[in-house]
Amino acid sequence: MTGPTTAAKKATDIGCLLDARSIAVVGASSDPAKIGGRPIAYLLRGGYSGRIVPVNPMHPRIQGIAAVKDIRDAEPVDLAIIATPAAAADDAVAACVQAGAKGIILFTAGYAEADMAGAGKQAELVARAQSAGAVMLGPNCLGAINFHTGLIATFTTALEIEQPRAGGFSYFGQSGALGAYWIEMAARAGLGLGKWLSTGNEAQVNSADALAYLANDPDTKLIAAYFEDIKDPENFAIAADIARANGKRIIALKSGQSAAGKRAARAHTASQPGDDGWYEELFARHGIIRVRSLSEMIDTATLLSSATPFPTSDRLAFVTVSGGAGILMCDSAAEVGLGIAEFSPALTDALRTILPGFAQPQNPIDVTGAVLSDHLLMPHILDLLANSGECDGIVLFIGAMDAISDTLLAAIAQVRDQGFPLTVIWMAAPAKVRPALQDLGIPLFSDIPPAMAAIAAATRG
Amino acid sequence: MTGPTTAAKKATDIGCLLDARSIAVVGASSDPAKIGGRPIAYLLRGGYSGRIVPVNPMHPRIQGIAAVKDIRDAEPVDLAIIATPAAAADDAVAACVQAGAKGIILFTAGYAEADMAGAGKQAELVARAQSAGAVMLGPNCLGAINFHTGLIATFTTALEIEQPRAGGFSYFGQSGALGAYWIEMAARAGLGLGKWLSTGNEAQVNSADALAYLANDPDTKLIAAYFEDIKDPENFAIAADIARANGKRIIALKSGQSAAGKRAARAHTASQPGDDGWYEELFARHGIIRVRSLSEMIDTATLLSSATPFPTSDRLAFVTVSGGAGILMCDSAAEVGLGIAEFSPALTDALRTILPGFAQPQNPIDVTGAVLSDHLLMPHILDLLANSGECDGIVLFIGAMDAISDTLLAAIAQVRDQGFPLTVIWMAAPAKVRPALQDLGIPLFSDIPPAMAAIAAATRG
Repeated sequence: MTGPTTAAKKATDIGCLLDARSIAVVGASSDPAKIGGRPIAYLLRGGYSGRIVPVNPMHPRIQGIAAVKDIRDAEPVDLAIIATPAAAADDAVAACVQAGAKGIILFTAGYAEADMAGAGKQAELVARAQSAGAVMLGPNCLGAINFHTGLIATFTTALEIEQPRAGGFSYFGQSGALGAYWIEMAARAGLGLGKWLSTGNEAQVNSADALAYLANDPDTKLIAAYFEDIKDPENFAIAADIARANGKRIIALKSGQSAAGKRAARAHTASQPGDDGWYEELFARHGIIRVRSLSEMIDTATLLSSATPFPTSDRLAFVTVSGGAGILMCDSAAEVGLGIAEFSPALTDALRTILPGFAQPQNPIDVTGAVLSDHLLMPHILDLLANSGECDGIVLFIGAMDAISDTLLAAIAQVRDQGFPLTVIWMAAPAKVRPALQDLGIPLFSDIPPAMAAIAAATRG
Repeated sequence: MTGPTTAAKKATDIGCLLDARSIAVVGASSDPAKIGGRPIAYLLRGGYSGRIVPVNPMHPRIQGIAAVKDIRDAEPVDLAIIATPAAAADDAVAACVQAGAKGIILFTAGYAEADMAGAGKQAELVARAQSAGAVMLGPNCLGAINFHTGLIATFTTALEIEQPRAGGFSYFGQSGALGAYWIEMAARAGLGLGKWLSTGNEAQVNSADALAYLANDPDTKLIAAYFEDIKDPENFAIAADIARANGKRIIALKSGQSAAGKRAARAHTASQPGDDGWYEELFARHGIIRVRSLSEMIDTATLLSSATPFPTSDRLAFVTVSGGAGILMCDSAAEVGLGIAEFSPALTDALRTILPGFAQPQNPIDVTGAVLSDHLLMPHILDLLANSGECDGIVLFIGAMDAISDTLLAAIAQVRDQGFPLTVIWMAAPAKVRPALQDLGIPLFSDIPPAMAAIAAATRG
């Protein structure tokens, strides 16, 4: 691993966005469903303890908080959110800079992604912010969130229903919409969320700045990224190495591999997706995990955040209640380059004494329908494997089995209590299985290929 | 396409199993949770209108029905189910043959898949059945189901909760467990079920016989198959061609591609999975759709059974509410070999007049966040595409959007009413979306890659 050899521009510090102690909302609305009303409603509901300054020329109070007519009338704030209509956005940026705001979030679209005139206006805004030492996120972005402090500087509807649990999983990305789905999907998967950044057109703050912040952020343990291109690869690579040195994995969804995808990316955020091989090499060199979909990102994060994460190893044991599923597990593992453990004669003999006479004591281990009547069979097999020293993780396949689901869940809990890596594929599972495994911190999949893809991603990097 | 050149053995007619008008259960139990009790309970609940004959040496009545002590005491039956313990199974087969049963289902395991002695016993049973002109399913199988007549000759627990709706989707396979999950997953997906066969060791009735029956079965419109090997490839190919001639697609899950998978298959059903390339060729020659998982099988079946199935065409239009998702759609489509339509200048101009100014009128069509406020945008776009003559199917991506889900569902219903092919990917969907689309007969996916994989499978074969 060698670092970049040329002197890199220092990453822009975005602490003024995510750690702001005071926030103004320019274009604040009394309607919590409007773009200018939603951030205030979210800040209030999220328990944000800093100062909130609604800016509205007409109304002295917004959602119960004293407002100012102009941001320049207020004490300087750390962060100004601009939620005005497009026509007023340029003036609003100028006013925020004059008012001494350290950070600015510009939701408005219609800049570089639209046309040349927009690109010109965007360059002017950046120059104005930078000359005053201010940091601007956007334009054409959905804002930023600190789930630990209730700093919710976004108008995404993803937070309308309920506030996700705070935790260590953070996101940055060029797509605000995908970021919003990420919030919903990560929350549904039971993952706790850290920081969130929608970088939009990346006029000033780009993905390298976002990654640099998260790499050093004590609240962040695991990083998700969506991007179409990387505008500052040097600083991105430096930040990725810092993240790795701090024990944080990065899961990246990079789009624009195909010809049609590249064309669509240019229309979306004026991105230049470039040669995919270059990105593959970057990811390999800096230990970045690449996934192909949001689902795979959430699956991989669930595995990496589980109570018993898998090591990097080819010594996996497969245990199955269905012989057919055992074969499919082998095929699917081979397809993503995962190996399975070869058992010693001693372990094979030990398995033979536990398994029913007609079952073969080999990997994958088919416990057969005998598991339905012999309630000690599954705990015995799992215990034997976990203490064998011959495998480093177990992938367990179960289908339906409503009648003995409590017995199976207890066997799973026992392996988990030993701290031995375990992942469960439970097809056509009874309703209680998902919450039970979520409580245990054990990943659950409903079919084989997504499980193997996520295990490969999480263990291979 | 050339047919087999050698004279093929005629396929075994299994109508005596699936169309039986009278059924004996040897080893019948009064306990509906026991292996010998479950088929009787299922037959009674399923409304089977034929004669049911419990066989039990101890009890004169079983689950309310008059029983006989020995099957030879009863009027001859079309089908005898043998649910005795292993030690009594051989004698039970002999008794059933003597009693003139036309079909025999043998659940019991411990024959060819266990050891050489078992293989010998199995060969004797087949010889005995065949000499009397009887047809035997199994051993080591889960039985058979006719969902249209309530003929439920299985002890699978998959039917314990509720009886699936009857319909045109049928299954045969070497794995009873995977067959059971298939029932649960197909029913959850809203698909109606036709016939079901677990062939087990395939001592006499094999996959070619099952396929031959289903190819000519008027209740069957779409066929699912799971197998580890094909024991009679000649008849299998003939049956596949008959199915195709009758307008029925076959979706096959063939396991045992990998080295570890082949080894596991031998342990499971004494199968010889053989060279995967040979199977690929067979599938290609006979128009059989290959899938990699049960989920993909159900997804593909859902697409083929939808109100507006896709044609075989590269002219797909992608419509998305998220630019990032549009790029990912292109990448995912390219990965599975799906193309997208190129729009003419005329259609591009027409799109430009409808789309917001900053959106690009190209495929994929990003309707942008404007769809949230302009409720006519989505119906306009979909209508324009459906009537353009420039695409043969629409893949629509939506994420969350609780606030306008009714508007979006109405726009989808309108395309469906025109009979234009449409599939929906709705990420982080509100709860009401799944039942609403199921009512419309429109396939729903929760992420992009599974949708593209299923579209490729359904349209490419």
